[in-house]
Amino acid sequence: MPELRKDPVSGRWVIISVERGKRPSDFLSPSQKRKSGGFCPFCPGNEHTTPPEILAFRNANTLPNTPGWTMRVVANKFPALQIHGDLNKKGEGVFDMINGVGAHEVIIETPDHLQSLSTAPLKFVEDTLWAFFFRISDLKKDARLKYALIFKNEGEVAGASLEHTHSQLIALPIVPHRVKEEMDNSRRYYDAKERCLICDIINQEIDSGKRVVGENDYYIALAPFAARDPFETWVLPKRHESSFSPRDKNFTQLAEILQRTLKQLDKVLDTPPYNFMLHTSPFKDEQNDYYHWHIEILPRLTKRAGFEWGSGFYINPTLPEEAARFMREAKI
Amino acid sequence: MPELRKDPVSGRWVIISVERGKRPSDFLSPSQKRKSGGFCPFCPGNEHTTPPEILAFRNANTLPNTPGWTMRVVANKFPALQIHGDLNKKGEGVFDMINGVGAHEVIIETPDHLQSLSTAPLKFVEDTLWAFFFRISDLKKDARLKYALIFKNEGEVAGASLEHTHSQLIALPIVPHRVKEEMDNSRRYYDAKERCLICDIINQEIDSGKRVVGENDYYIALAPFAARDPFETWVLPKRHESSFSPRDKNFTQLAEILQRTLKQLDKVLDTPPYNFMLHTSPFKDEQNDYYHWHIEILPRLTKRAGFEWGSGFYINPTLPEEAARFMREAKI
Repeated sequence: MPELRKDPVSGRWVIISVERGKRPSDFLSPSQKRKSGGFCPFCPGNEHTTPPEILAFRNANTLPNTPGWTMRVVANKFPALQIHGDLNKKGEGVFDMINGVGAHEVIIETPDHLQSLSTAPLKFVEDTLWAFFFRISDLKKDARLKYALIFKNEGEVAGASLEHTHSQLIALPIVPHRVKEEMDNSRRYYDAKERCLICDIINQEIDSGKRVVGENDYYIALAPFAARDPFETWVLPKRHESSFSPRDKNFTQLAEILQRTLKQLDKVLDTPPYNFMLHTSPFKDEQNDYYHWHIEILPRLTKRAGFEWGSGFYINPTLPEEAARFMREAKI
Repeated sequence: MPELRKDPVSGRWVIISVERGKRPSDFLSPSQKRKSGGFCPFCPGNEHTTPPEILAFRNANTLPNTPGWTMRVVANKFPALQIHGDLNKKGEGVFDMINGVGAHEVIIETPDHLQSLSTAPLKFVEDTLWAFFFRISDLKKDARLKYALIFKNEGEVAGASLEHTHSQLIALPIVPHRVKEEMDNSRRYYDAKERCLICDIINQEIDSGKRVVGENDYYIALAPFAARDPFETWVLPKRHESSFSPRDKNFTQLAEILQRTLKQLDKVLDTPPYNFMLHTSPFKDEQNDYYHWHIEILPRLTKRAGFEWGSGFYINPTLPEEAARFMREAKI
């Protein structure tokens, strides 16, 4: 019998259709391993072909926008938003609009074209997380902006237009719909129980163990109970934290579990395309008791994302408990 | 300057990024025109290869599950849900679940493998709409079920696994998330104003005319103000109707505008892949003053649907007003 499961965080129901159950090998798509060759604007030596750098970690005595960097943040060359201008909020009858003021940046995670977040030395993953943190910290000073959405499209299928590993940041004058939904549900839960919803989920998942993908001292990786897609995995801090931030002044443990999870996915699904997004509290409500930041990783394995778009209703052919087991047993 | 627009029905914000503005020719993907050849379980003569028919429009003196039909509804051979069994609603700590009881049916819209909803004689579109209506009317008698979601995946990119034109119905013991969201927003609007939100939208759109794609006496096709995707188009009844139903005891005018809209899309975008979904009131609240049924058509033109999945946040490179103009000016 298939099962309908409700994701308590988003409020969304999902069909877990075990009769259509599939093993990882049913999902294999062209591997996202890197090839060299061809011009790449993100490779060292081509710094002049991107907008100027906003932030870089680079060797002493090297100039901005020249080689010598290990991590580089630049404006997106084709930005969806513009940083200059007024919000000019207005209505037109039943409709509401705001000028498209915001930031659209690209985080180039390593100079090495052949590496990815799962294969690069751990330091690059740590530095990427620092870059996220520094850019959020800077952008939140801008009173026009309410949220910085950080995401990664890995592989062409997942929306990446350039192969060289990178993530993106979009800073917005509004809070994205899904984050707002998660915050609303979390707030209602807190109002009813005086406890954080995701803290309760984590405690329950640690007790049962069956959807745990991995953990270390500070973080846990889980297959969500009502996963939308096969091998969807969330990475979360074990203690309550409302906003993305370093732990003990570093990102070592977070980098470790994030990279381990990506390695597990690579192993089980042969380097699949994926998206990840960081869900954290909005700028104006950074410290709160009810919302719990996390990273959602969604491998892009199925084509059947058709009507899901328009209905908010998902059919997942893989039991999250089985996906978690495959991931745990992966020899990485 | 890009613009952020809020869709009042879903409550979702969208970036309309005009700087990235694209013309229809920028979106051309492999045309979805049909080819003959190869085995097709939906073609006449192969009726025995599908589950038995639930409903068919067929010539007198022909037997079920043999040729002679013009429209045929069968159970999905790989159903996401099962029609037999109890709901067995239960909780497990913070999690909620329900047995996957429901229906998953396929509506084969014409016996002719080479036709589509945009090219077939209008009668086939009318009959398809009647099939939707009859199946919903039948399934709503089942007290376990709350909603019938009707959708179409046209083209492999949009999720169709068989080329022969068909739509699908999934009947569920819950209301899909997006429909629930739309109903909640519509109810709040009605509580504040004593008017239907979508009625107000339609009146405003008729006044301005700039996002009107087409209309006839009873129905209108619109590019939504905050379209998620280029050339997204909604078809709606002009007068208030909370549930999908015939008008003057027929579907002639609805079939006409639906087919005309699909022809316009085919002309402007060279027979693109698309999804459509019917959003109508749930079984238990069929007649109400606040929700307005409609069909949402989403051409699948862009690959950048990566993080949109996880954030509920969309970037649309085409101004809805321009999409509507291209559609209006299409010579069909």
